[in-house]
Amino acid sequence: MSDPNGSQSLDAAFCPYFHAAAELIGRRWTGAILRALLHDVRHFNEIKRSIPSLSPRMLSERLKELEAAGLIEREVIPTMPVRTEYHLTEKGRQLSPVIQAIEDWAHDWLVPDSTPSTRR
Amino acid sequence: MSDPNGSQSLDAAFCPYFHAAAELIGRRWTGAILRALLHDVRHFNEIKRSIPSLSPRMLSERLKELEAAGLIEREVIPTMPVRTEYHLTEKGRQLSPVIQAIEDWAHDWLVPDSTPSTRR
Repeated sequence: MSDPNGSQSLDAAFCPYFHAAAELIGRRWTGAILRALLHDVRHFNEIKRSIPSLSPRMLSERLKELEAAGLIEREVIPTMPVRTEYHLTEKGRQLSPVIQAIEDWAHDWLVPDSTPSTRR
Repeated sequence: MSDPNGSQSLDAAFCPYFHAAAELIGRRWTGAILRALLHDVRHFNEIKRSIPSLSPRMLSERLKELEAAGLIEREVIPTMPVRTEYHLTEKGRQLSPVIQAIEDWAHDWLVPDSTPSTRR
């Protein structure tokens, strides 16, 4: 670049929408929770059981954040006892390519003895 | 699913490698820093200037984490005064599809008046 200090190139290097998305889906446990929901795990206790070391309090907090952001919906099933299910909205389901891209990278680069040089 | 409570489906809903990757690249500011590096912003002060509200201390901490994880390399340029540059390793550059997927989603769903129904 002829002008690496130029404000134009620095402006292009930051995108507030990207940043907001990265901070939203990057919060601790949120990736794992979104992945569980994409795998049709819908009940609070099942999500909790599926993710090692995730506390009920933290899961509850994250689900509220995701609901506030419009990524998931909470549904109360009128059984006895009442069951509460969570499912992704369209906005949430459309994060599937993000989750998949992270997973592809993780399998290429974090799995021991993986061979990234032969990856797709 | 005939057995939504089955341990097999819950096992499939969690992947430790995905989780490790999501926690690594999801830390606060890390997404924006990786995106800046992908845009060839390489110097500490330029990265800092490109990302609003990012403190030097937080940037320094994040760069050390990314270096420890093998995503970036630190290079000292023997000028007067010495300059320090950061660039992505192959492992870091291969996060480009992740960054792009987040950006695509952000532009579809977070930009005001965007029209996700017509997205690619």
